[in-house]
Amino acid sequence: MSLGEFEFIARLLRPLARGFAGALDLGDDAALVDVPAGYQLVVAKDAIVENVHFFSEDPPEQVAAKLLRVNLSDLAAMGADPLAYLTMIARPPSASDSWLEAFVRGLAEDQSRFEVHLIGGDTVATSGPLVLSLTILGLVPRGAALERRGARPGDLVCVSGTLGDAAMALRIQRGLAVPEDLVEPLLARYRLPTPRIALGRALRGLATAAIDVSDGLLADLGHVLERSGVGAEIEVARLPLSEATRGLPGARACALAGGDDYELLFTLPPDRADLLPDLAVRAQVPLSVIGRITAEPGLRVLDENGRPLAVERTGYRHF
Amino acid sequence: MSLGEFEFIARLLRPLARGFAGALDLGDDAALVDVPAGYQLVVAKDAIVENVHFFSEDPPEQVAAKLLRVNLSDLAAMGADPLAYLTMIARPPSASDSWLEAFVRGLAEDQSRFEVHLIGGDTVATSGPLVLSLTILGLVPRGAALERRGARPGDLVCVSGTLGDAAMALRIQRGLAVPEDLVEPLLARYRLPTPRIALGRALRGLATAAIDVSDGLLADLGHVLERSGVGAEIEVARLPLSEATRGLPGARACALAGGDDYELLFTLPPDRADLLPDLAVRAQVPLSVIGRITAEPGLRVLDENGRPLAVERTGYRHF
Repeated sequence: MSLGEFEFIARLLRPLARGFAGALDLGDDAALVDVPAGYQLVVAKDAIVENVHFFSEDPPEQVAAKLLRVNLSDLAAMGADPLAYLTMIARPPSASDSWLEAFVRGLAEDQSRFEVHLIGGDTVATSGPLVLSLTILGLVPRGAALERRGARPGDLVCVSGTLGDAAMALRIQRGLAVPEDLVEPLLARYRLPTPRIALGRALRGLATAAIDVSDGLLADLGHVLERSGVGAEIEVARLPLSEATRGLPGARACALAGGDDYELLFTLPPDRADLLPDLAVRAQVPLSVIGRITAEPGLRVLDENGRPLAVERTGYRHF
Repeated sequence: MSLGEFEFIARLLRPLARGFAGALDLGDDAALVDVPAGYQLVVAKDAIVENVHFFSEDPPEQVAAKLLRVNLSDLAAMGADPLAYLTMIARPPSASDSWLEAFVRGLAEDQSRFEVHLIGGDTVATSGPLVLSLTILGLVPRGAALERRGARPGDLVCVSGTLGDAAMALRIQRGLAVPEDLVEPLLARYRLPTPRIALGRALRGLATAAIDVSDGLLADLGHVLERSGVGAEIEVARLPLSEATRGLPGARACALAGGDDYELLFTLPPDRADLLPDLAVRAQVPLSVIGRITAEPGLRVLDENGRPLAVERTGYRHF
């Protein structure tokens, strides 16, 4: 570890703060952020740990992008526009300067893609695995944030993109044999989620509740139901599966219980269903209706014949 | 580790969010923060690591308070009022539920003392030492934040409280023998800094630059000089030493180069010197003038006879 903290900040991180005046060149005790009149600040903080959320041998650029994107996904779920971020890097001696340089390169690429700037943070030494924490700041018009608690009986349960890809990628990494050409697309989904920022923005004023699918569909829909005090019924036949997973064993189980897809799950009043095709175009992602909100509490999963399947919120039993 | 993440949040952390509506009971993807018109958000993120910044056997309540206070100190240095915070806890299996409960108790006590609320964060598993990161949010009237870059030639260099206590405490922990009655007061200064929030607030519109002394006087004054493009001359005889350190060997070296005191170092136009006694009363902390800003770059430390001592910015050589 030859690069000292001050040099690391000055040489590698400071360029990421350029263009955001309130970052004060990362040269002060804190950053200053202007929140325009009529807007609220949206703030979230998610961390990833080596050998828990990423592997030591993963490309550092990808680790950086994943760290930024899981946080951007939280903003998307709130309907917020990304603004800025702070990082905390707890660095073991094993994290070489070149690892850090590649990590910062990954941040640089993704921050310009998502139009955010680094405005502060901390770098500390640790004897343990790399711990990377990020605090993301966004803006949303006052009162327009999407929350988990607004779902009402009769609302449609909708989801973006496809589900279960990241979970299937994990199965492949654990030894599931699949056709060669499916491996990379699925691993890419696991390594590099796509935060649905444009969708979140488009859902302001439309969706009654929203969440990103990080823990798995059943778990995350469960969070919405709990916060909203309602139940739901979803149909297995309507789960959006990717071309890659569709023919693989356990695809539906992955879609129901697997996490890390970072799609948006949202509820929509039934009289807004006609807006879905237009929303999908604006957000550049397919949208599917997979069920509906019920007054009766609990989450029911129906098979192709309309019969309830026995599932648990944080996983599934028989399938 | 018997307490799951959701239970930890629901049972221990959620009570810390009560009273801050935008925390959404820690039950959403992000928190919502209102910034009143005419104010700017101030944001900083500092982390502490087990066996680097605190010891495994330190009382968890104190670790929590230290984590919160080093971040509050950043707000103080900017002249900001504390508003809210987010935490990241990377938890090894060795961190028991009772450790976490005591840690949260420490957060609870200190957050009511400093009138802030927990509004979000993340809890992750790690195989390594505990890593604790905190993001602090504060408010400052637009344009009134204290920065490091405003010091001008002729300004007085001032510091709050006493310097070198935390560094002396570290020497004691490493084996320096001192009179019994000095041990606890010094260790307390190291374990539990006092963020100078009221002083920072009182310095708005008065101080031309400010920083908190976390790296050591020479290093932190060096940051101010570098950002401001000026030099400074400080007098060793004027360094504020506590009763406890005054008679101990190396007290001045600790005051010059030791970190972790978390006092405020600030510069004041010379025609404002008459305000210092009143400022000290309002901020409830003694204030000392220790030198002055010079147009000539570089940092000069003068001994009792006005002769320059050979020092290095990040430490000292001969003393």
